[in-house]
Amino acid sequence: MNGHAGEAAAVNGHARVGAPVIRTAKEARAAFRAGETGPTAGWAAGFTQANLISVPADWAYEMLLFCQRNPKPCPVLDVTDAGSYVTPLAPGADLRTDLPRYRVWEHGELAGEPTDVVDRWRDDLVSFLIGCSFTFEWALADAGVPLRHIEQGRNVPMYVTARPCRPAGRLHGPMVVSMRPVPPRSLADAIRESALMPSVHGSPVHCGEPSGLGIEDLGRPDFGDPVAAEPDDIPVFWACGVTPRAAVMASRPPFAITHAPGRMFLTDARDEQYRVA
Amino acid sequence: MNGHAGEAAAVNGHARVGAPVIRTAKEARAAFRAGETGPTAGWAAGFTQANLISVPADWAYEMLLFCQRNPKPCPVLDVTDAGSYVTPLAPGADLRTDLPRYRVWEHGELAGEPTDVVDRWRDDLVSFLIGCSFTFEWALADAGVPLRHIEQGRNVPMYVTARPCRPAGRLHGPMVVSMRPVPPRSLADAIRESALMPSVHGSPVHCGEPSGLGIEDLGRPDFGDPVAAEPDDIPVFWACGVTPRAAVMASRPPFAITHAPGRMFLTDARDEQYRVA
Repeated sequence: MNGHAGEAAAVNGHARVGAPVIRTAKEARAAFRAGETGPTAGWAAGFTQANLISVPADWAYEMLLFCQRNPKPCPVLDVTDAGSYVTPLAPGADLRTDLPRYRVWEHGELAGEPTDVVDRWRDDLVSFLIGCSFTFEWALADAGVPLRHIEQGRNVPMYVTARPCRPAGRLHGPMVVSMRPVPPRSLADAIRESALMPSVHGSPVHCGEPSGLGIEDLGRPDFGDPVAAEPDDIPVFWACGVTPRAAVMASRPPFAITHAPGRMFLTDARDEQYRVA
Repeated sequence: MNGHAGEAAAVNGHARVGAPVIRTAKEARAAFRAGETGPTAGWAAGFTQANLISVPADWAYEMLLFCQRNPKPCPVLDVTDAGSYVTPLAPGADLRTDLPRYRVWEHGELAGEPTDVVDRWRDDLVSFLIGCSFTFEWALADAGVPLRHIEQGRNVPMYVTARPCRPAGRLHGPMVVSMRPVPPRSLADAIRESALMPSVHGSPVHCGEPSGLGIEDLGRPDFGDPVAAEPDDIPVFWACGVTPRAAVMASRPPFAITHAPGRMFLTDARDEQYRVA
């Protein structure tokens, strides 16, 4: 853990000279609340980061059912009561202010990217905290699986697949995946290590030929950055927490709030807690 | 698997002389639909059995949220659309007729124990299929962990604990656990094997001293039968799928249907599917 924590911080450029060292999720949240807006990769390593999606109570059952029916892309870590912006995963945190940046959605269209959502909050919002692949990446790194996108200082590439999620009422949309090129010697380790963390996407949904997921060009991801692979690398695809946001874009609820890409919510939970064995 | 299947069938007394051999879940469901009312332990071994709980749509969000907030006792395998009695876990099955026996609940009180619920069905019922410890028992048996209750031909003992579940709206109640006495040499195997199946209760919630869960007398379970332990055995407690039924009894929704004790729903899913690695 500690080795990976240092490595991730350095690779992601957050070991800022002269800046206070951020060690805990609580310190990170305070920095974001105070105005820091950068991506959260590498911050407070070892603490579990989560995707945020807040929808009106009228849509909450369908969102929770959508997540239950699609547990690999949408592993639910917590759901708040309507109107509440607190979670037992991070006592003292305020979901309206403690992320670096948000996205506000109206009828599936982007309607703003504020650094807090105090003014946009509604008493009927139910917030979902969804697991994030950052959590299993440390386990891959600890098992010696190279993480090409981190080596190259890029965001992980993500792709909208041709595989539809199982719908839930009005909510529907495609499964989104993240891709990591894995060398043949590490494939079994990558699968096993992620399989042991089913609450944060679990094992891959596909290994190899991208066309099996309807992906035409690995060089043109829908989100994130393209990543260079070594000649023998196998593209490995994990279900991605961007999926519920894609469902919001496709299904157009009247209102929703999400984190801005790469600007996750840092919980006080530890990544190890999501490992089953 | 096959060895265990035969063993379980024999131990549970379902290797009936002259009776047709039930090999698949589909065959078992047909037998139950035709009037067989006995307990399902040992039937169609290898196929996943599930707890059934059906509540009015008005209570469905709270039930689903209750399950999300208490995933060890309430692992959700599937949720139907309102009024629907079909599930992709068992194509062709009818949830109203294909269990051996049901319980009907009105305001938290038992209001009947019919062998089908066609006449009691409502268009607003949402059915939850919840994971069952039968699924991890085969993994324990395959790992050489003795299952005392099966050796003794009894139902597993279950206890209402003093540990409250995290409530969800109107739904609240205590966690219910099942207990298996495990010899010291097998404790690690029992924990590891069940931990690898987080969708069917996962690792134990408590090992050892029953008072830690508020259980006063292991000889007097709240459900199931008492089981005799060997002198060095450690009592091991797993969260139990009876928990949502206990929440119905405590929270008193106007109407609910569950399976009768020990009369589970047999899905076409295979127990191995719920093993993460």
